[in-house]
Amino acid sequence: MNEQIVVSRFMLALDLGGTFVFAISGAVAGIKHRLDLFGVLVLSFAAANAGGITRDVVLGATPAAAIRDWRYIIVSILAGLVAFYWYPVLDRMRSPVLMFDAAGLALFAVSGTNKALSFGLGPDPAILLGVLTAVGGGMLRDILVSEIPYVLRAELYAVAAFAGATVVVIGHMFNFPSAIVGIAGAALCFWLRLMAMRHGWRLPVASHEVK
Amino acid sequence: MNEQIVVSRFMLALDLGGTFVFAISGAVAGIKHRLDLFGVLVLSFAAANAGGITRDVVLGATPAAAIRDWRYIIVSILAGLVAFYWYPVLDRMRSPVLMFDAAGLALFAVSGTNKALSFGLGPDPAILLGVLTAVGGGMLRDILVSEIPYVLRAELYAVAAFAGATVVVIGHMFNFPSAIVGIAGAALCFWLRLMAMRHGWRLPVASHEVK
Amino acid sequence: MNEQIVVSRFMLALDLGGTFVFAISGAVAGIKHRLDLFGVLVLSFAAANAGGITRDVVLGATPAAAIRDWRYIIVSILAGLVAFYWYPVLDRMRSPVLMFDAAGLALFAVSGTNKALSFGLGPDPAILLGVLTAVGGGMLRDILVSEIPYVLRAELYAVAAFAGATVVVIGHMFNFPSAIVGIAGAALCFWLRLMAMRHGWRLPVASHEVK
Repeated sequence: MNEQIVVSRFMLALDLGGTFVFAISGAVAGIKHRLDLFGVLVLSFAAANAGGITRDVVLGATPAAAIRDWRYIIVSILAGLVAFYWYPVLDRMRSPVLMFDAAGLALFAVSGTNKALSFGLGPDPAILLGVLTAVGGGMLRDILVSEIPYVLRAELYAVAAFAGATVVVIGHMFNFPSAIVGIAGAALCFWLRLMAMRHGWRLPVASHEVK
Repeated sequence: MNEQIVVSRFMLALDLGGTFVFAISGAVAGIKHRLDLFGVLVLSFAAANAGGITRDVVLGATPAAAIRDWRYIIVSILAGLVAFYWYPVLDRMRSPVLMFDAAGLALFAVSGTNKALSFGLGPDPAILLGVLTAVGGGMLRDILVSEIPYVLRAELYAVAAFAGATVVVIGHMFNFPSAIVGIAGAALCFWLRLMAMRHGWRLPVASHEVK
Repeated sequence: MNEQIVVSRFMLALDLGGTFVFAISGAVAGIKHRLDLFGVLVLSFAAANAGGITRDVVLGATPAAAIRDWRYIIVSILAGLVAFYWYPVLDRMRSPVLMFDAAGLALFAVSGTNKALSFGLGPDPAILLGVLTAVGGGMLRDILVSEIPYVLRAELYAVAAFAGATVVVIGHMFNFPSAIVGIAGAALCFWLRLMAMRHGWRLPVASHEVK
């Protein structure tokens, strides 16, 4: 019991941490495109919560958690304000931000997959929703500023989410304790993404030209 | 009783009026990008109804009203046809169109917030959904023609919706009659947006450069 | 009975065929923009399934079929891999691909309309959802690579889906057998699209300039 509470608080902290760093990435995109304060906050919220909202809507788990639970809203707005007023500070710590971003990716991949499994979906759909939760916010952020999503171009970005989600699904099939499986999946996703950034790992690009 | 019917008809008229003017804004965007008649009608429908559909889907109020109620569809198509065949007339009355647009924004902010409250959501989520209802259609319209949404860049656009939604939520907390609160919220939103357009009021933009 | 099984298998084959060719169109868009393998697969899935997912979400038919049924996922991924590794082959058979695309459009228009009718929606909304199912995937595909959707610009694309959906709704109103009505609707949509491509049929574009 005691351990479960610790784990659940740990997961919530990670979840809100993921929301925070994704919200910062949205705010930075808005600042880059010279949006005003409110536009920046809209992008913060979209980047942090679009993945989770899409997951809930596709599952039929409505009203979506990010809408119902005020903590997600507050954390998103807070992150947007931080980015808006202290961007130079963020800029100097760019590498920690990328590490937080990788942590957010890892957490969202795990939480999305878990939620899909708890709704009785099979392995393939659960992995799919895990990846969607992890990458959906970044996709909407880039669509809103009219760019091809970074998610589709970065080093092993969606692949890392896919690996983390797969670990969760396999652990679930073998009835391993979900907290341990979740940590393992998140760790794999996080490690893969960090290694890919450091070493420039990439999946192949099609070898033929398209006219 | 009698008064309630008058108010509810007044709200419906405003709602369909908002749908009409937002549909016109979608059609104009389509004409600008040289789309054919059907493309223009698709943009009309998207601009007028995407906000409300997103609100209903996130709430779980499905099938979404804009899909279920034929009046929204007919009004959207009608507005698209008007814009397609009589654009020069619309062009001459540009300023009235912007006023109608501000009226639509005001109405949708109020109706979106009310619907969220009637689904038992708290203050923060209700305001969020009110703003989403009001600005969602314009966002999809601009995404579809591959531009950064006007909503994110215009003078106090989302802010005005936010102010109107906040009035509705505060009135709801004090149990004021919802018709009066709705009119007050819509009036504030409308007035803010008009003043912002006239005087070029803007929120601040982040003061630091982003590379 | 026997005949019904044949028809239902025929519909499923067409449905998965439509998923396959739409997935290929998504993959080709990804290859054009030099995305890596995973990005290409994401675009495959989005192009093949976004229309159906949007239909299910707007209807409230969740979890959405494309998420719940592993066959749609597998077919989408398979199509993405085929496009990625054998693009030159696809390129040589460009005209057959366009024919399959028209077949997919026809099938999705019919299946989307049927699903909406089975949820008790009226004629107008059913047609609307049929068109949305047929064109939604292509729209998201183009949005993701930051282009104005082809759907909004191609020869009679959405119009053909509209015609097919209308046949299904009229047949439903007269209680005609849904298999025959479905085939008639799909055939009309398919024929219209092919003729439009061959002869360059287009709807009019607004005659006035927009500044």
